[in-house]
Amino acid sequence: MKALIYQGVETLAFEDAPEPRAKAGEVVVRVEASGICGSDMHAYLGHDARRPAPLILGHEAAGVVEGDGRRVTINPLVSCGVCAACVAGRENICADRQIISMPPREGAFAQYVAMPESNLVTVPNHVPLAKAALAEPIAVSWHAARLALAALSPDMERRAVVLGGGAIGLAAALALRAQGIAETCIIEPNAARAAYLRDHCGETVAAQAARPTPLIVDAVGISQTRATASQIVEPGGVIAHIGLGDHADGLDVRRMTLQEITFIGSYTYTAQDFRDTAQAMFDGKLGSLGWTEERPLQKGAAAFQDIRSGAVAAPKVILRPWP
Amino acid sequence: MKALIYQGVETLAFEDAPEPRAKAGEVVVRVEASGICGSDMHAYLGHDARRPAPLILGHEAAGVVEGDGRRVTINPLVSCGVCAACVAGRENICADRQIISMPPREGAFAQYVAMPESNLVTVPNHVPLAKAALAEPIAVSWHAARLALAALSPDMERRAVVLGGGAIGLAAALALRAQGIAETCIIEPNAARAAYLRDHCGETVAAQAARPTPLIVDAVGISQTRATASQIVEPGGVIAHIGLGDHADGLDVRRMTLQEITFIGSYTYTAQDFRDTAQAMFDGKLGSLGWTEERPLQKGAAAFQDIRSGAVAAPKVILRPWP
Repeated sequence: MKALIYQGVETLAFEDAPEPRAKAGEVVVRVEASGICGSDMHAYLGHDARRPAPLILGHEAAGVVEGDGRRVTINPLVSCGVCAACVAGRENICADRQIISMPPREGAFAQYVAMPESNLVTVPNHVPLAKAALAEPIAVSWHAARLALAALSPDMERRAVVLGGGAIGLAAALALRAQGIAETCIIEPNAARAAYLRDHCGETVAAQAARPTPLIVDAVGISQTRATASQIVEPGGVIAHIGLGDHADGLDVRRMTLQEITFIGSYTYTAQDFRDTAQAMFDGKLGSLGWTEERPLQKGAAAFQDIRSGAVAAPKVILRPWP
Repeated sequence: MKALIYQGVETLAFEDAPEPRAKAGEVVVRVEASGICGSDMHAYLGHDARRPAPLILGHEAAGVVEGDGRRVTINPLVSCGVCAACVAGRENICADRQIISMPPREGAFAQYVAMPESNLVTVPNHVPLAKAALAEPIAVSWHAARLALAALSPDMERRAVVLGGGAIGLAAALALRAQGIAETCIIEPNAARAAYLRDHCGETVAAQAARPTPLIVDAVGISQTRATASQIVEPGGVIAHIGLGDHADGLDVRRMTLQEITFIGSYTYTAQDFRDTAQAMFDGKLGSLGWTEERPLQKGAAAFQDIRSGAVAAPKVILRPWP
């Protein structure tokens, strides 16, 4: 099969690779759509020790099950199923969790990928597979929104600010509204991205938060956005933190203590979150999902360069492995 | 009346001061016992901009209401009562909150203090006022324990580590057990303090945490303890953070995100927490409370020096304003 292989810092090659084989409980999925995530970009730039070259990146995929033709979207998080976390339905903190695109599992920037049957969610015929591939990034935001709302005091206004207008930030705004937040505002400094979100997605976007806000989603995850989050959150409020941008912290812990702020580290999603997200997408509760740009996998290297240079206004680029 | 007046960095004087007058809704309390808090120590060292000299410090007090002789312990946090936070029972995040020992309210290292009637909790006759004065510091820990337990996933073990064996740390261990945590361990580097907690209070004490723990209470609040908290907390767990020790942060935010840690800034207590704490004390649910050392207010300056030099093993020094 053909695959986009990460070969070293800023080097991706579209080459032949061995086809994956299904182990017990697994099937092979013919990949039809595979989104580029910020974490793929981190790996591409050599910033992710968890993803050493050579490796097939990509973990936001939808496709067709080989053999039975079922249209599916893929939950890329594989967990042990038997530990206390898994039994409690918190598969995302399973100590043995794996994700495709991290060894020992190859990723989905390829024509085929092997996955456990239990990680697949069937996609109804009215949903294109290029949209179904958004289940993964949206599930990340859905999970963070769910945790944040569970922590938010019932007496506070249902109002949120999302820092960052990439796919995770946009998806956070969509998920928050689907879960009952009345008013969301995305803070996005890139003018082209901000205009896209405003004009094409109908989102409320601003250069900075206008007033203290009960709920903040940090969908960037760098020290600067953490500093902003801990300064603009309303007393008694909640920060949900998704990104893995840098290691320095940036939080104003003194203010967080004096004003009783809750900070929630949020990582991926539970299996139930993934299914709930997919269902909400299929039911149209997360909007039209028309915020992707599709490109052939063969031109994946150029797509990474364009994203890095800020030349892509759409929050998500979807690679298509088949001509 | 006599009072211990903070006159400048590391300077306290036992002097005459004007007696307080009760405003509308207030009464004057004859102070019988007034505990020294870490925040009094911060002020004494000149580290608290909220407490400028000259000022009467002290906010952990119990005494007798002038005029009717009622024995009371004092909730020192005065809130507006009408804002959204107050109406929701979160008086501790009221934007107009005041606390005695911060302008415009003088503190309780004095023979009398004026307080709103609604801030008083009647103390039963079987409880000495020197113990009743512990309601305030214990309420701080009770509140943090309540928030932490509300955030802790029901599937996780009921096991906690408390960083710091001062009054707040010891009270956190007591409050956690009273609220259903089966096993607590206090981490305390000062050998004399550790021995006191172990031998005199029956607490489990260690020099460092032996294994990942679902719930951490940081009862110190410096960058070093925050770093420890974020490293030893079990995946999916909770850190409750009480102290205001320094401004740098120290948190391992990357781990907190990858392992889905919740960090809760906790400040003082709600009025209900204060009443619940006092009731739990009166009912004997927080132990014998025999971990104080009593000294005359007249010798308050020496008490501050002894605490600062680490020469006091008891977690709490109670000053008595009357001979």
